Amino acid sequence: MNNIYLSREAEVLSPYTPGEQPKENNFIKLNTNESPFPPSPKVMDIISREEVGKLYLYPDPECGILIQAVADYYNNFNIKPENIIPGNGSDEILAFAFRAFCGQGKPVAYADITYGFYQAQSALFGLDAKIIKLKDNFVLDIDDYLDFPGTVFIANPNAPTGMAIEIDQIERLLKSNPERVVVIDEAYVDFGAESCVRLIEKYQNLLVVQTFSKSRSLAGGRVGFGMGSQILIENLNRVKYSWNPYNINRLSILAAAAAISDIDYFKRCTSEIIAVREKITRDLKSIGFTVLTSRANFIFAAHESISGGDLYRGLKSRGILVRWFDAPRLDRFVRITIGSREQMAKLLETVREMME
Amino acid sequence: MNNIYLSREAEVLSPYTPGEQPKENNFIKLNTNESPFPPSPKVMDIISREEVGKLYLYPDPECGILIQAVADYYNNFNIKPENIIPGNGSDEILAFAFRAFCGQGKPVAYADITYGFYQAQSALFGLDAKIIKLKDNFVLDIDDYLDFPGTVFIANPNAPTGMAIEIDQIERLLKSNPERVVVIDEAYVDFGAESCVRLIEKYQNLLVVQTFSKSRSLAGGRVGFGMGSQILIENLNRVKYSWNPYNINRLSILAAAAAISDIDYFKRCTSEIIAVREKITRDLKSIGFTVLTSRANFIFAAHESISGGDLYRGLKSRGILVRWFDAPRLDRFVRITIGSREQMAKLLETVREMME
Repeated sequence: MNNIYLSREAEVLSPYTPGEQPKENNFIKLNTNESPFPPSPKVMDIISREEVGKLYLYPDPECGILIQAVADYYNNFNIKPENIIPGNGSDEILAFAFRAFCGQGKPVAYADITYGFYQAQSALFGLDAKIIKLKDNFVLDIDDYLDFPGTVFIANPNAPTGMAIEIDQIERLLKSNPERVVVIDEAYVDFGAESCVRLIEKYQNLLVVQTFSKSRSLAGGRVGFGMGSQILIENLNRVKYSWNPYNINRLSILAAAAAISDIDYFKRCTSEIIAVREKITRDLKSIGFTVLTSRANFIFAAHESISGGDLYRGLKSRGILVRWFDAPRLDRFVRITIGSREQMAKLLETVREMME
Repeated sequence: MNNIYLSREAEVLSPYTPGEQPKENNFIKLNTNESPFPPSPKVMDIISREEVGKLYLYPDPECGILIQAVADYYNNFNIKPENIIPGNGSDEILAFAFRAFCGQGKPVAYADITYGFYQAQSALFGLDAKIIKLKDNFVLDIDDYLDFPGTVFIANPNAPTGMAIEIDQIERLLKSNPERVVVIDEAYVDFGAESCVRLIEKYQNLLVVQTFSKSRSLAGGRVGFGMGSQILIENLNRVKYSWNPYNINRLSILAAAAAISDIDYFKRCTSEIIAVREKITRDLKSIGFTVLTSRANFIFAAHESISGGDLYRGLKSRGILVRWFDAPRLDRFVRITIGSREQMAKLLETVREMME
């Protein structure tokens, strides 16, 4: 590349490609794992004209009301405000973690098949990264990580497979080396996997990362958070205050605090998505699909008689967007976000037509 | 520090300390250079209940409507959407620039007295930084930069002095080495300094950074943007898509696009702030203050008979927050944000009382 301005460090980056965000509204959008439900009514009410009128003032850089709301929600597990750091989406928390815990003499490990962002961010900081292969059946075997001396990033449930790992296994990893930070990315945990939050009290080396984008219907608000021991949170704050101290805007702080306080709405949305996921899984299996066991708000599905690419393109031409990863081991599959019952019925009908 | 988890790279960080954001509302807040005016009425109208209801969907990662609105605003200077990158505040754009343009073999230079963030971000990427002293009268002499081989960051007007540099001088720097990127941080440019935007067409190596936080009354929305040649913007996007692709939330994209389209409101707010700045400058000088010539929405003022620290503490105890930097060459001064006429009258009255 003839680009005299670019630093060598930026030249070797491998930028992430976000899922398509079509400008037109006429697609059934099952490609970026958004919730099919609007935000909680409490979110709708908190973004008042009065609050918009205060946008001339900086937000609270500590996001006090938000970390208090998260602490209240996880009160049972003894999570305090000093155990929480909020970010401009959980992607930002992950980036803080890569810088805070990894570097020279501190390598990082993650699976070959997982959230693509780990690779992008690992390149951003020029890290020594060990890519550990999932088993052929996409299972993450914790034994493969026990001897690794650096920081480990695990998405649980994993993307794009949707498969979850038992937290006993994660606990083995935490125990095996208390000097190694383990980051558990729980973006999709609220759809049926077990969270590691309850282990935070016990393991100083555990960082749990969650997001408001999926189970709390706030992808457009860009809010995620990390939870861990006070020492880990302090380390992350060193990076935050070197990068972008006012990292969350006023309205998103309010929206996220309101969203996490509405437990009823959250439960209704997540249990509906789980029910719809189980139904579409059965339906697709009944017409010959392989569908991995998902604990997320998406499924990863393949069929012997059609390639992943053809399925993706065929659905797109019929008005349904799903995500296809053109990569070894993944290209047989498509990832389908769990939408509303109506959207899933339409998906099933369209797939049936295509298969005939 | 006995902190086994922290990377060496994060250990050497020098995190930025934001200005105080008091929880109570009873201070006259002249410490973080916010606008005293609410956002444009167009901002108030665009954040509708309908838009809040769409927060379950991701924002457009390219922020299409926002970069189009900025392009429309700078249409006279032939700025196109591909010349613009928006960020989660201009701090984020600066961070992208440090990573995109600096690294091994690509050092960075900035003034000893300038926005404290340059140092924090330079440490974040472990850069070789040359700190160049301002003259004793706080003037930035462009000759000090002409031979420097790496990227140059200049705040114009500078912080915390408020002093501006002529753009002829910046043009000399751009010309003297077309292979060197020059980043002009114009956070405060709309209060009477001349913008370099008109030079972008001519100089491929110029990046201009602006923000919605000051002149457009959106500090709480967290939106800034960089403008430059297509090649520089592409380089910055490599970093953005490795760090945080969905970096601006839906509501802030809308708010910022609405704000920049309301030219009348912008002109009224900025000319009022300039008028109030000129008045308070005269008033403080009349009671013996040294006030640097400011082209920003703040002034930097000192008095022989009171130290900066005493002035800061005295004002705080009387309900007025200003910013004091406890650092060599700066500690005689306080930085005072230009507030409303009433706030400035109260400030003057309080200072007078204190001086008696």
